[in-house]
Amino acid sequence: MTIEIPAPSPSDKFSFGLWTVGWQARDPFGDATREPMDPVYALERLAGVGAYGVNFHDDDLIPFGSDDATRDAIIERFKKGLADTGLVVTTATTNLFTHPVFKGGAFTANDRDVRRFALRKVMRNIDLAAELGAQVYVCWGGREGAEYGASQGVAAALDRYQEAFNVLGQYVTDKGYDLKFAIEPKPNEPRGDILLPTVGHALAFIETLDRPELVGVNPEIGHEEMAGLNAAAGYAQALWQGKLFHIDLNGQNGPKYDQDLRFGAGNVRGAFWVVDTLLAGGYDGPVHFDYKPVRTEDDEGVWVTAKACIDNYLILREKAKAFRADPEVVAALEAARVPELSVPTVGEDEGWQQLLEWPLPDVEALAARGAAFERLDQLALEHLYGVR
Amino acid sequence: MTIEIPAPSPSDKFSFGLWTVGWQARDPFGDATREPMDPVYALERLAGVGAYGVNFHDDDLIPFGSDDATRDAIIERFKKGLADTGLVVTTATTNLFTHPVFKGGAFTANDRDVRRFALRKVMRNIDLAAELGAQVYVCWGGREGAEYGASQGVAAALDRYQEAFNVLGQYVTDKGYDLKFAIEPKPNEPRGDILLPTVGHALAFIETLDRPELVGVNPEIGHEEMAGLNAAAGYAQALWQGKLFHIDLNGQNGPKYDQDLRFGAGNVRGAFWVVDTLLAGGYDGPVHFDYKPVRTEDDEGVWVTAKACIDNYLILREKAKAFRADPEVVAALEAARVPELSVPTVGEDEGWQQLLEWPLPDVEALAARGAAFERLDQLALEHLYGVR
Amino acid sequence: MTIEIPAPSPSDKFSFGLWTVGWQARDPFGDATREPMDPVYALERLAGVGAYGVNFHDDDLIPFGSDDATRDAIIERFKKGLADTGLVVTTATTNLFTHPVFKGGAFTANDRDVRRFALRKVMRNIDLAAELGAQVYVCWGGREGAEYGASQGVAAALDRYQEAFNVLGQYVTDKGYDLKFAIEPKPNEPRGDILLPTVGHALAFIETLDRPELVGVNPEIGHEEMAGLNAAAGYAQALWQGKLFHIDLNGQNGPKYDQDLRFGAGNVRGAFWVVDTLLAGGYDGPVHFDYKPVRTEDDEGVWVTAKACIDNYLILREKAKAFRADPEVVAALEAARVPELSVPTVGEDEGWQQLLEWPLPDVEALAARGAAFERLDQLALEHLYGVR
Amino acid sequence: MTIEIPAPSPSDKFSFGLWTVGWQARDPFGDATREPMDPVYALERLAGVGAYGVNFHDDDLIPFGSDDATRDAIIERFKKGLADTGLVVTTATTNLFTHPVFKGGAFTANDRDVRRFALRKVMRNIDLAAELGAQVYVCWGGREGAEYGASQGVAAALDRYQEAFNVLGQYVTDKGYDLKFAIEPKPNEPRGDILLPTVGHALAFIETLDRPELVGVNPEIGHEEMAGLNAAAGYAQALWQGKLFHIDLNGQNGPKYDQDLRFGAGNVRGAFWVVDTLLAGGYDGPVHFDYKPVRTEDDEGVWVTAKACIDNYLILREKAKAFRADPEVVAALEAARVPELSVPTVGEDEGWQQLLEWPLPDVEALAARGAAFERLDQLALEHLYGVR
Repeated sequence: MTIEIPAPSPSDKFSFGLWTVGWQARDPFGDATREPMDPVYALERLAGVGAYGVNFHDDDLIPFGSDDATRDAIIERFKKGLADTGLVVTTATTNLFTHPVFKGGAFTANDRDVRRFALRKVMRNIDLAAELGAQVYVCWGGREGAEYGASQGVAAALDRYQEAFNVLGQYVTDKGYDLKFAIEPKPNEPRGDILLPTVGHALAFIETLDRPELVGVNPEIGHEEMAGLNAAAGYAQALWQGKLFHIDLNGQNGPKYDQDLRFGAGNVRGAFWVVDTLLAGGYDGPVHFDYKPVRTEDDEGVWVTAKACIDNYLILREKAKAFRADPEVVAALEAARVPELSVPTVGEDEGWQQLLEWPLPDVEALAARGAAFERLDQLALEHLYGVR
Repeated sequence: MTIEIPAPSPSDKFSFGLWTVGWQARDPFGDATREPMDPVYALERLAGVGAYGVNFHDDDLIPFGSDDATRDAIIERFKKGLADTGLVVTTATTNLFTHPVFKGGAFTANDRDVRRFALRKVMRNIDLAAELGAQVYVCWGGREGAEYGASQGVAAALDRYQEAFNVLGQYVTDKGYDLKFAIEPKPNEPRGDILLPTVGHALAFIETLDRPELVGVNPEIGHEEMAGLNAAAGYAQALWQGKLFHIDLNGQNGPKYDQDLRFGAGNVRGAFWVVDTLLAGGYDGPVHFDYKPVRTEDDEGVWVTAKACIDNYLILREKAKAFRADPEVVAALEAARVPELSVPTVGEDEGWQQLLEWPLPDVEALAARGAAFERLDQLALEHLYGVR
Repeated sequence: MTIEIPAPSPSDKFSFGLWTVGWQARDPFGDATREPMDPVYALERLAGVGAYGVNFHDDDLIPFGSDDATRDAIIERFKKGLADTGLVVTTATTNLFTHPVFKGGAFTANDRDVRRFALRKVMRNIDLAAELGAQVYVCWGGREGAEYGASQGVAAALDRYQEAFNVLGQYVTDKGYDLKFAIEPKPNEPRGDILLPTVGHALAFIETLDRPELVGVNPEIGHEEMAGLNAAAGYAQALWQGKLFHIDLNGQNGPKYDQDLRFGAGNVRGAFWVVDTLLAGGYDGPVHFDYKPVRTEDDEGVWVTAKACIDNYLILREKAKAFRADPEVVAALEAARVPELSVPTVGEDEGWQQLLEWPLPDVEALAARGAAFERLDQLALEHLYGVR
Repeated sequence: MTIEIPAPSPSDKFSFGLWTVGWQARDPFGDATREPMDPVYALERLAGVGAYGVNFHDDDLIPFGSDDATRDAIIERFKKGLADTGLVVTTATTNLFTHPVFKGGAFTANDRDVRRFALRKVMRNIDLAAELGAQVYVCWGGREGAEYGASQGVAAALDRYQEAFNVLGQYVTDKGYDLKFAIEPKPNEPRGDILLPTVGHALAFIETLDRPELVGVNPEIGHEEMAGLNAAAGYAQALWQGKLFHIDLNGQNGPKYDQDLRFGAGNVRGAFWVVDTLLAGGYDGPVHFDYKPVRTEDDEGVWVTAKACIDNYLILREKAKAFRADPEVVAALEAARVPELSVPTVGEDEGWQQLLEWPLPDVEALAARGAAFERLDQLALEHLYGVR
């Protein structure tokens, strides 16, 4: 069977960060290999590959420490770029990690002045985010963490983290902004261990906030895979808890440094299941690619990757749909009793009492039933290969 | 400085599972190297090394499928063993993973009859747990998971997982048992990916239950470290969320198969910070060792490890206390501004408005301050080495 | 482009171990879910899915401790099975890991009697291997290792490991057997750390033997990936050093317990590059699948996996060929200067002197050249997806 | 027992790279937090903490692209600094990774001009190394690798890698330099996968060179641990093969980004066994620390770490000696039959024939012997803790 790959459309909501295509490819062992990228040029090229939206850290757009006039001029020019290209700003975020002032954290820095400065920096950019129409504000606390056990009290740090989101929740509420927050978990790098290291830790933390309804998660495939976790399962739990406010798609090859490969590169089976999970869960937010074109590439290589991210998503989406529509797959799901998992374990008119009275089945016979998972997975793999 | 290692006392609440010292040392590539261990013998030897409590899976004590008379006789003999040794039953748990019937999961098996059987098996052992005075019921869902993306719908599985805890919560409530549940997360093994893979995922899940107050977590050091996570930080978040109902201490060397080494073996610095975190957080439940004496050992080797677990905990506890009491450490914490993290970022009479009016500090000067974390960590290491 | 998947043929040399399809699915936390498999039944079913050859551990075929009469009867029956199905024995190996006597190692056990017994066991099975026409004798030293730093002196262990291969090399030479050895590396599990943990360590070790020409490696995809290594690169180095005597294909999802998934499951991009590497390097030995059908499956599920291993190899082989034959790929390789890597750095009539006199190029201009790797990799991915 | 920590002495041969203490703490997500460090200042401070030697990349000392006059002036000043402080240059190395020209590799770049430039750059710095008295020339091929399977042919890359070492071997031979090479393996970062990823791969590669006797390895603890490997076992195999020409000591917490923590931080038990292995193997080269003071620290923090590396080595060395000298340990080693591993498996007057005639022992009795490894390891741990 050959799948048809559709062209990208605005309803697909493909978006990119300015920092992704504009990454200058400086790494821990090497200097920049690409020139700084003009944000308006980025808009034009992104529009060219079929993007719908963009997002940015404050410092991506407006260099750290710019005065107000410079800032305003940059914003005006950027707005014109948006109008010219038809791109929208889907989300925004704050850079709380590049400047040395954040070396020991931002919301959870031991130094209180740093924490206060961080909150100010966020509020300032929230105003811009709201002005530009962003609906989600992403928070990656990349420096919130430690290398060493004593250098930060985790309980105190969580208190401060909580306080920060409470203040920011109050801020957007008081301002009347239609803006939600999405916490982006990451296990480590650049800190030895980062607070809220996985989707789970972030979901749990959110429940402790004054306004949990304002805060969700922004899982990044690579970040979950750096902890050896199944990214699709993380997305699924976030969806199940009603908290998948944004997504960061990219590629990674297991526990090692943060590779930020283009989406589709890395764990390709994992990518397939992420897309399948997003479809199953009805996710309808931006399909955002948070990746870095590898350091060996020049500007043209950058645009190859932007297009490839979109193509790979569309390919995988069509494959996931074809997989779910395939009658052999439907039969194999049935054989594997997958639909039976949606039937409550205890009947509507049952409680534990009835369960205790339930005549036990023949346990050995139950045990002898093959689960038929291999057949089902092979069908999925053949869809991925495009041979079915 | 030489630390004094105290003798274990009942107030230390050291406990062991029958399945730990009684492990027959069968592994994926090898047959058992040790004989089955009589539970009463286990009690006697555990008492001999200073244990305070024991716990067990139903099947550890009562072979799967025993008839009622056999069961009652075993329980009577075990109670006598407890009385003779003075050991208490701190917790209990259900084996929902050894028998082939659970090969595809228990609470989240696709096969509904398996799910019903699993709930029955748990309820039956909860009765015994309550009878024996256990206060925490541990739930390790080791088979709740999948190798393949389609073989289990994660959302449906979480529905069933939730349902199971709701039923069990109703059960202990209706029965009037003074018993709480502790979910034990694990990322993988024996399944390719396990549901609720980390402390964070379990904490988040608990908030969705009918009776969240009845359910907490039982983090195992090795399980968190299998995901490359900082175990102490996981314990700290669980404590911070009021959910550290039980602990499983052991040893692991990073992401690989579940090693279950004796406590102290494996990541020894991590162990130090776990103990420090437990002390700081005021954890006062059982100090439980969930490990496996390595397969090369005979019965005497088993008891070496049981004693070593206790000794290592006592050694690390004394070291952690000495570290926190050391005036140089206190000064180093101050220099690293650790106490400042406990000061709220926003003052009592401040809100975001005041923060916006706050005169910005000199950011470059803030950035230039050294954090003094290396000095602090070296002091910790020297306490660990016993050279300070 | 649609690829044609050919039927398996004997020239493909697909082979399976009796222990793979016959695995009873006992894992560290669970009892067997499948019945023991009759070896002759295995031959019949393997022939049915297109296998060419089989191999076995001594104990797979002949239960440990069988007397000579039993052994002979089993061998006769097995020979008849081979004749009836047309399957050949490609390789054989020794089980030096299941019996408790090997709990502390075999060739490198501290206990000298164990080492001597291990060598005897190997020699006895080498005779059978030779009798059955095997050409490669695989050696997986799964128990050669340690959990703890002092429990085995590594230098002494390598001395004994070396001695063992020297004795066995002498044995096959004296016996006139046409048999080579292939060492199978693995980083850990069932031991905490295993000697010769990667392809590299084994290749290095081989050079120290009396008869290095008799010994090569048998890399297993999953074992390399358990160390986070690129399996294809390991196969490539083994080929480059003329030492790829056998291959073990399967699937794994990064550093965790040994999953032994069917080939194609796990890291599918990695599998593609392994096949591409084997084709590029002219590997012409058996294409051996060393995996375990997951524990949830019944007998029919087992045969789904055996067929799937073969299908996936054939699919990936056709894709790799199509990739290399695609004119766009050829152009992209050229653009990425891949062929230029085959040109020696120093010319035929050059030495270091001429290199020192060579007029330096414009380094900044060289640095500015994009490497065009993203384009090339995206083409590979599209071949994998079957959309090109 | 309290150990005495001796003061560092020149015979300890402690050495540091200029790039370690001088690291400006730029990471993938953050700008530099420390000023550039004057090399002569580095010499003075290193001398102050007890260092014996230093080493450097060419670009550490002499900025990339300096003209000859600048270069000469820098070298003169550096020589004076050496003379003033009494420090020696133990080793040197080439920076083949920072400049964008090396983005696709150096010795194995697809671009031949880059390869030629790389060789030139090395030869130029070898001259300086020889002039300054270095005896080992370290080669870390951090950019020799790939993110993607097709972007570099591994066999061709190994050809070029081999060629490079053959040219350089010819160079030092022709020049009469008393200089050996030490290859430093690393599994990944900054490339997705690096060639010669572990000690084993490098050892195997060396055997293919024209002058294998000139080339050894320089294992870095953290690099081996990034692959989940036991660093001490890697050092042991390198020693066993006579190839441990240099060592890089530091700290790492398992498979994640390259942490380069000070020695002793990270896996402290692993560090103990590395030191024990170095003592057992009679390593007498420089004890080199290759680490990075964490980014949060200022200049004073840097010198805390330098001193701590030395202190931790001395502490662990004394502990390792005390462990080996402890009569209880000697007895425990005997009980664990560790000395028996040094007895050849086959007697002096035996061959395989005699082994076949050897009356088999009682295998079950052999199997029943406990290995007593837990007791032995607990003794080691107690020495590490300083409670014994």
